[in-house]
Amino acid sequence: MRKRVCVIGAGPSGLAQLRAFQSAADKGAEIPKIVCFEKQADWGGLWQYTWRTGVDEHGNPCHGSMYRYLWSNGPKEGLEFADYTFDEHFGKPIASYPPRAVLFDYIEGRVKKAGVRDMIRFNTIVRDVRSVASGFEVTTRDEISDSETTETFDNIVVASGHFSVPKVPHYQGFESFNGRILHAHDFRDAREFLGKDILILGTSYSAEDIGSQCWKYGCKSVTVAHRTAPMGFDWPDNWQEVPALDRVEGCTAYFIDGTSKTVDAIILCTGYKHHFPFLPDGLRLKTSNRLATNDLYKGVVLAGNPALFYLGMQDQWYTFNMFDAQAWWVRDVIMGKIALPDRSVMEADWQQRQADEATLTDDYACIAYQGAYTQELIDETDYPSFDIAATNQAFYVWKKHKINGIMTFRDHSYVSPMTGTRAPPHHTSWIEALDDSLKSYLRD
Amino acid sequence: MRKRVCVIGAGPSGLAQLRAFQSAADKGAEIPKIVCFEKQADWGGLWQYTWRTGVDEHGNPCHGSMYRYLWSNGPKEGLEFADYTFDEHFGKPIASYPPRAVLFDYIEGRVKKAGVRDMIRFNTIVRDVRSVASGFEVTTRDEISDSETTETFDNIVVASGHFSVPKVPHYQGFESFNGRILHAHDFRDAREFLGKDILILGTSYSAEDIGSQCWKYGCKSVTVAHRTAPMGFDWPDNWQEVPALDRVEGCTAYFIDGTSKTVDAIILCTGYKHHFPFLPDGLRLKTSNRLATNDLYKGVVLAGNPALFYLGMQDQWYTFNMFDAQAWWVRDVIMGKIALPDRSVMEADWQQRQADEATLTDDYACIAYQGAYTQELIDETDYPSFDIAATNQAFYVWKKHKINGIMTFRDHSYVSPMTGTRAPPHHTSWIEALDDSLKSYLRD
Repeated sequence: MRKRVCVIGAGPSGLAQLRAFQSAADKGAEIPKIVCFEKQADWGGLWQYTWRTGVDEHGNPCHGSMYRYLWSNGPKEGLEFADYTFDEHFGKPIASYPPRAVLFDYIEGRVKKAGVRDMIRFNTIVRDVRSVASGFEVTTRDEISDSETTETFDNIVVASGHFSVPKVPHYQGFESFNGRILHAHDFRDAREFLGKDILILGTSYSAEDIGSQCWKYGCKSVTVAHRTAPMGFDWPDNWQEVPALDRVEGCTAYFIDGTSKTVDAIILCTGYKHHFPFLPDGLRLKTSNRLATNDLYKGVVLAGNPALFYLGMQDQWYTFNMFDAQAWWVRDVIMGKIALPDRSVMEADWQQRQADEATLTDDYACIAYQGAYTQELIDETDYPSFDIAATNQAFYVWKKHKINGIMTFRDHSYVSPMTGTRAPPHHTSWIEALDDSLKSYLRD
Repeated sequence: MRKRVCVIGAGPSGLAQLRAFQSAADKGAEIPKIVCFEKQADWGGLWQYTWRTGVDEHGNPCHGSMYRYLWSNGPKEGLEFADYTFDEHFGKPIASYPPRAVLFDYIEGRVKKAGVRDMIRFNTIVRDVRSVASGFEVTTRDEISDSETTETFDNIVVASGHFSVPKVPHYQGFESFNGRILHAHDFRDAREFLGKDILILGTSYSAEDIGSQCWKYGCKSVTVAHRTAPMGFDWPDNWQEVPALDRVEGCTAYFIDGTSKTVDAIILCTGYKHHFPFLPDGLRLKTSNRLATNDLYKGVVLAGNPALFYLGMQDQWYTFNMFDAQAWWVRDVIMGKIALPDRSVMEADWQQRQADEATLTDDYACIAYQGAYTQELIDETDYPSFDIAATNQAFYVWKKHKINGIMTFRDHSYVSPMTGTRAPPHHTSWIEALDDSLKSYLRD
């Protein structure tokens, strides 16, 4: 009987999985029956912007962490699909740091061309997965018909992402702060903070980018509190980095060095959880956000139950093309082209990867590590190979651009590792470009 | 073997159920084994204030809809426990409209006295319930140990509330509004809206009270849009009621009569869903918010599976003492003191209740209807009876007080239907009382 494969989520990872199977079918292979469950009304995962926060229209936790005016924070040449280039999609070279709508259009272009939409059941949330003798019993809820279905699958591919469920720390005084406290997950429109003093907790991408957005759209000041080290970029004059938050009293934040700042809003850029409320223990990945996760052989196979896979659960330098590399590789395991070793070998694999990760001493080494991992997977499937060394190099240059100018790094251009095309400069510098529409971005 | 009963939720309804069983035990009865699962870290349900919005510290949807500075919006004499009076708890008469902290203290006082805390497993979310031959299989997750347990129960009492999962409508332009859009569920501190123009959608309690809070704490203006009829109270000068919202452009809201208002924030007071994501179809109550819900015999027994009960799922004039009446009645069904009729009789019961509800022509009739329902249940158990006619009358007077002065109705005093005590006036009028602490409220 034809195998049945359940894919959970139709964001970049889940869509990569659908495209991987469709690509095999295109080459004449008989592929399993694929059913992809997506709780949102449309595909694209985080790239599907929603104004909603908290819970969605069906009362389920809102997936979206995307905010308005987001532009890619790395060059598009680092995330290009090897099987569907930016040149192919847009029919002309475009600049290197597209805003959300442009990247969404690109992601969608590939899967529209592939014709995989009818594999997806939208507005359908996975409520429970159970391991049973014949595979997995998956209970899903169709939120439109308000009804449940339980089906059996041979394989599960969990592609529900890990930038959707916030980690939200408490600090003394939060319960009586007289402004707004929000996590980055609930940040939507920087103009809401026009003229305001904002405090950001955290030093990772969300902190850097949400702070920059608020600054660009006219907040009064940005104060960023760090627990370990400041980001250390050359920030504008109304931006300061301060030591960790100690407590809040009324509208005043006190830091551990005794300084204080009165603020209107506190934005918690404190990261996200790997959170799979639909999975029982035994199937549920429990890991911190790192390059080599716990429990996943080759970064994708759950060693304890190797009929179940996870995509994109790593901390990420590489993104879309790494998800592709994983999806093609998982496809080949499911289709029997790649054999899995014994459990002991699989357990040793992720432990060795973690040991290797522990030796990495800086971001450059991390980039190279993840490039090598991506290459490793690509080498074992028919996913089109591309110049990983050049891609690593692009990331290195990008980091230097950021150090040289945190508000200007997006004005640079890169060479595609897929096509060799050099991106043209954008018609407007990022600081000046307040219109983030696709139409504006693509005009000459 | 001793029966096992699962209670889901340790808010006012769930605590009523624990108290009901403990009360029977106190009188010498052998009660079932009771296990109450509560996803929050402490009891009190909505009365347990949290500064969090969106998801909680464990990544689960945040239960709390409570906001700072909330004072009861009806006289405490309408919600008094018949078995534990305000006089008993506070040791003296107190004024009629207590703020949250005072009501929480009262709710907690009864269950502390009853000694039921060790029936509750805190930080434990119910993830799935299945109907099995031996009863129900309940899968719960202990969020502290990050582990799951599946246990079997003979009965389930669902007491998870229905003011926790927002209904959030979309209007054209929400996706590009340049301020904050939030549901009442995420409203926390009125001072956040100091000096702002706010738009409220909706005309029920949330709209009335959140608007009043924002007005009291200094917002610039309140605009309330209604779809059917205005609330019609005698609002302050900077408060206007307008027809339904048509669309938003930038920061400007356009109403269906062609008028418009530029606002800083939109607060959706658009109600809550009956939402039970942990229940499968067949056990899941599907109803609108009304006095006579679908599918519940006597308002509490799921006709299709009468080993499962729901508490407090009605639209509410009566609250705490109605939950008590229900909990005592459910206890007696579980303990075999009250027999259930055939399914056809149970189905006919809720249908007849809905037919009766349909004949009610105004709020006064609704109050009397729910008073009679509460009386009906009390008459069949040993819950202490109280003067329902006097309580109805208190609600009628309350409604008139609101019409006479929507910002002053909380300054009135009522007579307890339990003790006959007349409440003293509060030392400060509600408009002037910015400190909502227990200490401030209780001082002479």
